[in-house]
Amino acid sequence: METKGNLMSFRPDIKVVDATLRDGGLVNNFYFEDEFVKELYQANIKAGVDYMEFGYKASKELFDPAQYGKWKFCDEQSIRDIVGNNESDMKIAVMADVGRTEMSDIPDRSESVVDLIRVATYIHQIPAAIEMIEECHAKGYETSVNIMAVATVRTEDLDQALDMLGQTNVDIIYLVDSYGSLYPEQIRALSKKYLAVGEKYGKAIGVHAHNNQQLAFANTIEATAAGVSYLDATMMGMGRGAGNCALEALLSFLKNPKYRLIYALKFVQDYMVPLKDNGLVWGYDIPYMITGFLNRHPRTAIAAIQENNRNYVEFYKEAWDREN
Amino acid sequence: METKGNLMSFRPDIKVVDATLRDGGLVNNFYFEDEFVKELYQANIKAGVDYMEFGYKASKELFDPAQYGKWKFCDEQSIRDIVGNNESDMKIAVMADVGRTEMSDIPDRSESVVDLIRVATYIHQIPAAIEMIEECHAKGYETSVNIMAVATVRTEDLDQALDMLGQTNVDIIYLVDSYGSLYPEQIRALSKKYLAVGEKYGKAIGVHAHNNQQLAFANTIEATAAGVSYLDATMMGMGRGAGNCALEALLSFLKNPKYRLIYALKFVQDYMVPLKDNGLVWGYDIPYMITGFLNRHPRTAIAAIQENNRNYVEFYKEAWDREN
Repeated sequence: METKGNLMSFRPDIKVVDATLRDGGLVNNFYFEDEFVKELYQANIKAGVDYMEFGYKASKELFDPAQYGKWKFCDEQSIRDIVGNNESDMKIAVMADVGRTEMSDIPDRSESVVDLIRVATYIHQIPAAIEMIEECHAKGYETSVNIMAVATVRTEDLDQALDMLGQTNVDIIYLVDSYGSLYPEQIRALSKKYLAVGEKYGKAIGVHAHNNQQLAFANTIEATAAGVSYLDATMMGMGRGAGNCALEALLSFLKNPKYRLIYALKFVQDYMVPLKDNGLVWGYDIPYMITGFLNRHPRTAIAAIQENNRNYVEFYKEAWDREN
Repeated sequence: METKGNLMSFRPDIKVVDATLRDGGLVNNFYFEDEFVKELYQANIKAGVDYMEFGYKASKELFDPAQYGKWKFCDEQSIRDIVGNNESDMKIAVMADVGRTEMSDIPDRSESVVDLIRVATYIHQIPAAIEMIEECHAKGYETSVNIMAVATVRTEDLDQALDMLGQTNVDIIYLVDSYGSLYPEQIRALSKKYLAVGEKYGKAIGVHAHNNQQLAFANTIEATAAGVSYLDATMMGMGRGAGNCALEALLSFLKNPKYRLIYALKFVQDYMVPLKDNGLVWGYDIPYMITGFLNRHPRTAIAAIQENNRNYVEFYKEAWDREN
């Protein structure tokens, strides 16, 4: 395989995106202490992280604010309480799900400390995603689009969606392995496909991996070697179910001297280990491997692990019969 | 990259080698219950595993039998107590470390139920390894050679060692990532090198990965895609420190209908989960990631985890200064 860059040097086009609050928020319903968020913000700045994603811009009509922590909604003031005017080189991102966001909740860029709106879409929502992208772009934001669950999408549909997105004002198109089902050779092939669209239309390509088969780090660095430049990761891999690519692993791999692994390690030992000690559960386990290789949503695996059900044989037999 | 085979079919040349007792024995000093070993043997047969490694043929002059379980020594009778005459299609393997084995402990093949002797060597012991290989071959065994800690070996030395081994009667040459330090792109490059020697001299190539950076499964399947055919794995990844490629993950990836994942899952739930519940510790953790990416022996990480020391910052600072 042709690789972009090599293991002794670094590529200045690479951007590390910390998604701890957003994907990790799916573990604790977005209930993070303010101290945690402030320290994460400082740790990311010191570690050289390029973007920090604070959470979702979820609709308060569709989701009851009494049922979630504030990072499900990411009010402008909530973010400013942490970052002030964000006097740093790190950019601020939020995620907006197609169909679950009120566009009126997104102010003009000139009134916001947010830099990047990440539009998350399923394949059948591409036209709605494009409308959101263009509106966010018109408001002055950088935009990215995450096509979720790509391993369940027909190739013809994906090709068409990528071509449609290429013609929008979106800045970054993300390859997203929602179910952690893709093997490195598939990630390389998909990276090549996305990068070809990126080259044609002048878009950067990103990768967001899940660890269901213990492949999140491997798939992230393989996408990187293929030329992908926006790399999602979370502290200690915190994220729904099996979690994500661990930020500390990613920084240990990257060679740009701006990245300072030690500050990520410090945050992990001081703030992430206590979350685990206090009972939050995420990370690789065998039921995730099973939903992963079967290319299924991990919800049944999450339930099995919450119930401490270790009957892997029954789980496998059921998972295999079940529809997505 | 050119791949051998694809994700929808299978390669009949692939052999799965279960190393649970041998690499897992490094976790519990080889103290496995007989029931565990018998059930593992039956589970491997049902799961379609090709070779089961029972442990080491360690010298009783150099290692006190009172200090270790019997699988450190693998007496012929110990194996026969489990397998009888091994009336199955699965082959039996043992490992013999160069410099730690008495060759007089290895009977003639006609008197043994063992099929394969795996000679483990460091790069400076290659002539001694060759002597052992030839003696085992003359006794009638299949032989493999594991060149350990290859990520610390100078390229010129490795090339020379591979060429010397190619000229012996060894059947299989193993690529071994002892410290779990190699990235998939390095595994692919090394696989290519080993496979070129294999092609020249008619040897099969194997891979033995460690999970220090959560890359054991990824590196094993990447080596497979490159054409490597002997694949080491252990139940639930049990092995020293961060452990190995998980056998259940490997079987979920392989497409040969002879492999029956469900029997591996059954053994894992019935016998491996209880080992963990009873306090045995192995598997990925952050100190292993640190020794892994620094290409260091994991002994300091094992000690830190045994002491439940989560000061990753100090660990990193010390690991980085320390010699191998």
